[in-house]
Amino acid sequence: MQVQLKNIEVEKSKTTKINEVDFDNLAFGSVYSDHMLVCDYKNGAWETPKIMPYQPIILDPAAKIFHYGQSIFEGMKAYKDTDGKPWLFRPLDNHKRLNISAKRMAIPEIPEETFIEGLTTLLHLEKDWIPTTPGSSLYIRPFVMASGIGFHASPADEYKFIICCAPSGAYFSGKVSVLIEEQYSRSANGGVGYAKAGGNYAGQFYPTQLAIKKGYNQVIWTDDNTHEYIEEAGAMNIFIRINDTLITGPTSDRILDGITRKSILEIAEDEGIKTEVRKISVTEVVTAAKSGKLKEMFGAGTAAVVSPIAAFGYKGVDYDLPELNDDYASLLKKRITDIQYNRTEDKFGWRFKV
Amino acid sequence: MQVQLKNIEVEKSKTTKINEVDFDNLAFGSVYSDHMLVCDYKNGAWETPKIMPYQPIILDPAAKIFHYGQSIFEGMKAYKDTDGKPWLFRPLDNHKRLNISAKRMAIPEIPEETFIEGLTTLLHLEKDWIPTTPGSSLYIRPFVMASGIGFHASPADEYKFIICCAPSGAYFSGKVSVLIEEQYSRSANGGVGYAKAGGNYAGQFYPTQLAIKKGYNQVIWTDDNTHEYIEEAGAMNIFIRINDTLITGPTSDRILDGITRKSILEIAEDEGIKTEVRKISVTEVVTAAKSGKLKEMFGAGTAAVVSPIAAFGYKGVDYDLPELNDDYASLLKKRITDIQYNRTEDKFGWRFKV
Repeated sequence: MQVQLKNIEVEKSKTTKINEVDFDNLAFGSVYSDHMLVCDYKNGAWETPKIMPYQPIILDPAAKIFHYGQSIFEGMKAYKDTDGKPWLFRPLDNHKRLNISAKRMAIPEIPEETFIEGLTTLLHLEKDWIPTTPGSSLYIRPFVMASGIGFHASPADEYKFIICCAPSGAYFSGKVSVLIEEQYSRSANGGVGYAKAGGNYAGQFYPTQLAIKKGYNQVIWTDDNTHEYIEEAGAMNIFIRINDTLITGPTSDRILDGITRKSILEIAEDEGIKTEVRKISVTEVVTAAKSGKLKEMFGAGTAAVVSPIAAFGYKGVDYDLPELNDDYASLLKKRITDIQYNRTEDKFGWRFKV
Repeated sequence: MQVQLKNIEVEKSKTTKINEVDFDNLAFGSVYSDHMLVCDYKNGAWETPKIMPYQPIILDPAAKIFHYGQSIFEGMKAYKDTDGKPWLFRPLDNHKRLNISAKRMAIPEIPEETFIEGLTTLLHLEKDWIPTTPGSSLYIRPFVMASGIGFHASPADEYKFIICCAPSGAYFSGKVSVLIEEQYSRSANGGVGYAKAGGNYAGQFYPTQLAIKKGYNQVIWTDDNTHEYIEEAGAMNIFIRINDTLITGPTSDRILDGITRKSILEIAEDEGIKTEVRKISVTEVVTAAKSGKLKEMFGAGTAAVVSPIAAFGYKGVDYDLPELNDDYASLLKKRITDIQYNRTEDKFGWRFKV
């Protein structure tokens, strides 16, 4: 069935997979909804986006995505409120960041209307896929990759912008323990660490595997020059509470400008929590842990939401974080998810009606 | 037609595209031969490789190659001698390096026999595609990419190892001028710069575009911390001749261990040229340029072979390299290509009969 909806072609799936999905036991990002959006860039322009049944992508073996990692993505979520209405959270910020990533990776920028209209049209079709079990949401993955061909190491001349949706549970299950990295690095000064570029993630897999073998869940990256300053955790930004002050590192060309990160900062300030955005050294964190001043560490990101860290390892020593009754992480997580799931007033104007 | 050749399934193409190719005017890596090798990794093991007609690759939209840049590759060439016999150059070194890249990118290693037997079987089929016009060769692109699916940022459980062939002319046309980079970086200490990981290349596109706009062909990367030391040029390692000494930077976790690079070093030593493998600062290069001691700069790589650099730019000043009659680049290029094209004795044992 072909229907024309505004500027988007929609081909509806004749069948649905929704009854095959166990919505009470959702993993993260491993089942996909019935439809996807595909928009091709050819001859110097983005074509009309198409929504179509979720289906394989067919590419020439010489497509530059396979050879040169020219790809970027965003992570977003759709939330359903108790009335069954779907909501997004700061989607314009995702669009803006996608284009920041695009520029750095020499990928043509996506027009705002293509992104927002494409996304909302897709979500109207997929609204039954937004789960309602506590802590679950519809994870949305917009991505752009080089479909143009050639073995010359230069930007492709054709791209595909695609949006897929995956009903998802929590990113981390159970308590999170992290290893502060002393050897490997995530990004370089003047590099692409601030972009959501595909290659930034694959480079973390091996060091993360090593950390997992040692019993940790995730690596906390440090600067590549001295390994003395906390950067981010790859899938999330890092917050550290020393006494009653909440500290996070400044964004830079090495650190992703997380939307959850900046929202948490605003909420914390609104709560009257003292916040500091500054470089924070591993020495400071270890010293605070030893003296009992280190109260909390948590990660913040779209996938991870707010993930409290139970322990961290550094130079072969493990440090447990205290269990508090009045932790910032729980408070901030409640406040941000209350906005996301439309359970409260949104004084910041972040909620976005689909 | 299905034929079983050793451990490789071969399905021959019913047609050939070879008559459509202008072998006298070959670009680099933009036309592809009739067959490709595909080997799937599933259930924890590499399956039997298949040689099949060159054809599109079909992947799920959630394949991790699209999202997390989990891919590696090699660059190789097949050369045809005047008797029409095909040759490779140090292919075991490419296999070894592919597995070094694989380990860093959390990709399962490729068995040597799969690599070598797959490659030679493919080349037997494609030997008519090896061009014989001067300076041309059959560029070979083995690559591995994550075909397994999932939005969780972790290694895929399925991969594809593919080899494609592209009859190719020179990588650079005309004189090469380079810009010594002061702001952007290619790789981090503890990062993936030494791996031929896809994402290493896409990250270079934007800074290279900026350099091209300024009139240069290529960027010479410097260390991300001080931008004071010469690293490599992304598609090639860099050699610098000061007076009669040939200098190149040491390989590290930021710099690719180039097979052409190490071959050039051995040939230079065999020629009695004084070589130094050491860190070389931009200041030293600029000072030598100003005093007339900088005699040559050239890039070395499989694609670029030996590419003399005619000029470099740094901090807004352009420095021309002298035109010599007895330049090392010409001598070394002749010696390495004489070995590659079977025009001379191979005292190093680098040539490999297909």
